[in-house]
Amino acid sequence: MGGDFGPEVVIPAAALALDDMSGKISYIFFGDENRIKPLLGKYKVLEGISEIHHTSGIVTNDEKPSVAIRRKDTSLRLAIEAVKEGRAQSIVSAGNTGALMATAKLVLRCLPGIKRPALASVLPTRQGDTVMLDLGANLVCDAQMLVQFAVLGSVYARVVKGIDTPRVGILNVGSEDMKGPDLVREAASILTNIVFPGDYYGFVEGDDLAEGLVDVVVTDGFTGNIALKVAEGVSKLTSHYMKEAFLSSLPAKMGAVLAGCALKKVKKRMDPRYYNGGMFLGLDGICVKSHGGMDVYGVSRAILVAAHLVEQGYNSEVAHEIALVMNQQSNGIEPEGVIA
Amino acid sequence: MGGDFGPEVVIPAAALALDDMSGKISYIFFGDENRIKPLLGKYKVLEGISEIHHTSGIVTNDEKPSVAIRRKDTSLRLAIEAVKEGRAQSIVSAGNTGALMATAKLVLRCLPGIKRPALASVLPTRQGDTVMLDLGANLVCDAQMLVQFAVLGSVYARVVKGIDTPRVGILNVGSEDMKGPDLVREAASILTNIVFPGDYYGFVEGDDLAEGLVDVVVTDGFTGNIALKVAEGVSKLTSHYMKEAFLSSLPAKMGAVLAGCALKKVKKRMDPRYYNGGMFLGLDGICVKSHGGMDVYGVSRAILVAAHLVEQGYNSEVAHEIALVMNQQSNGIEPEGVIA
Repeated sequence: MGGDFGPEVVIPAAALALDDMSGKISYIFFGDENRIKPLLGKYKVLEGISEIHHTSGIVTNDEKPSVAIRRKDTSLRLAIEAVKEGRAQSIVSAGNTGALMATAKLVLRCLPGIKRPALASVLPTRQGDTVMLDLGANLVCDAQMLVQFAVLGSVYARVVKGIDTPRVGILNVGSEDMKGPDLVREAASILTNIVFPGDYYGFVEGDDLAEGLVDVVVTDGFTGNIALKVAEGVSKLTSHYMKEAFLSSLPAKMGAVLAGCALKKVKKRMDPRYYNGGMFLGLDGICVKSHGGMDVYGVSRAILVAAHLVEQGYNSEVAHEIALVMNQQSNGIEPEGVIA
Repeated sequence: MGGDFGPEVVIPAAALALDDMSGKISYIFFGDENRIKPLLGKYKVLEGISEIHHTSGIVTNDEKPSVAIRRKDTSLRLAIEAVKEGRAQSIVSAGNTGALMATAKLVLRCLPGIKRPALASVLPTRQGDTVMLDLGANLVCDAQMLVQFAVLGSVYARVVKGIDTPRVGILNVGSEDMKGPDLVREAASILTNIVFPGDYYGFVEGDDLAEGLVDVVVTDGFTGNIALKVAEGVSKLTSHYMKEAFLSSLPAKMGAVLAGCALKKVKKRMDPRYYNGGMFLGLDGICVKSHGGMDVYGVSRAILVAAHLVEQGYNSEVAHEIALVMNQQSNGIEPEGVIA
């Protein structure tokens, strides 16, 4: 029921994602049966693999998470409970981010050993994609959390993107070891001294993000949220300027027609719909957030993110790797030169 | 002597800036006389208004600030001392940022009442320019520092950009009052309750930066540095993609030629050279940093930033306004609802 368009976009998106996964998905749709049923009828491919769980309650977009988590009858809450109870392997929602995060944390809880779940997303870069986390689930972090984010991100890059030893960078104001606040230097020191599923690359700066220097970028949720939105904003402004320029004169218009094909490729390369699907990593259950304003293609991409995490057994890999990391730390393989 | 090109770029840039200021600048060039003198000879406009202060010491780009501040014979140190002693009204350098900041702080000290100076810069947005600070001088900030940054930025927007009551936003992960870490909420509470030279707008998000919702964006140096570099990186990646696209086929190439004029305007609108010139605001003396890789036009822009700050009496305005703000706070006009 969430997002700007509700089932009118979610149902066709489910059909599209099913096609991409060669039919290896089945769905439970939580929400208003009166809106969902007629739509389902239009998509024959969803027949037989779809179930409707009627709910009357809906979490609105401006509802406070603290209020939303107390309501037991919402589509959001009931869908998450289906994951908790094993009736579904993942939940995808285009609804209220804060409510989704709070309810998922409350119902699903963290995987053993995980201090706090993180919001992660895949970003386009000059050299392929990069996964970045945390993007806003934890505004204030400690070094241990950044270390766990590095594990969560590395396992994602390995099992979903197929990168054997993902390069992991910590976002910082400089690349030199002595740069940055205590928090990032302490996390760097730990990652240098433990064995984890990634390869610790070092600090990366803001402009290294778009360059794609590393496969995984780790940061606190405050910085990550702002960095992601700055990138979106600049990208949007640039394409606004380009559109304006191409409409500014007759030769420019003709130029746009001639270069149309090539320009479309650029647009596709940075298409936010392709990169849609924020993952709450570290929960005991797969939970993916779609942007609220996404169209059918965009929402289908978020569904695929969830499907791939389930298919690749992401959570059992993470549980295993976090246990190994914790074991090293409790066995006294302590970081050297930690800043007091 | 600083930057990637030294006097070979700085001297012609000085001539160009002089032209822009209708001759209302005079220069003291600190550095190697043997390199500066022949160059000066080529620019007749600089004759009679330029002085060379020969120095043998140079701060290299990889020199640690802690080492640089102990050297008394460098062009950087001696140029800053000229400002301290009133022989110059401002210092512009394309050299080592950390060394410039540390030496300027040590020699010039802060204006009365200023806790810490901030690095500020002007950024292009959809609706004109925005000044943003801190961009990396203070990685960890408290609420009082953010409040002072708001004053520093507002006075800049008023006296240099001519905006009567500049709108001031604090960078945050959401626009609602209850969003964000204690630091930003406390600063917001103070700015809501005091009279200062700007108009407190509220929280702004990462994507609001490019939109230009406000005239002044306030943030801590860690977040600001990363946000600025993310914007630079995305901007660079987009233009790289565009170039690649325009070279990818014959029709695209022809399109680029036809739209050339319009595309140049876009490029100019986001030209980093135009926006060159990081200001260390809050010091008892004007200090401006040029990017090291800038060409003649870029360095001339940084010189003009310094010239405008001097011409508009920025520092005496700031000293006055900071005193007023401090007075309100010590008189018990305390922020309401501060988070404990």
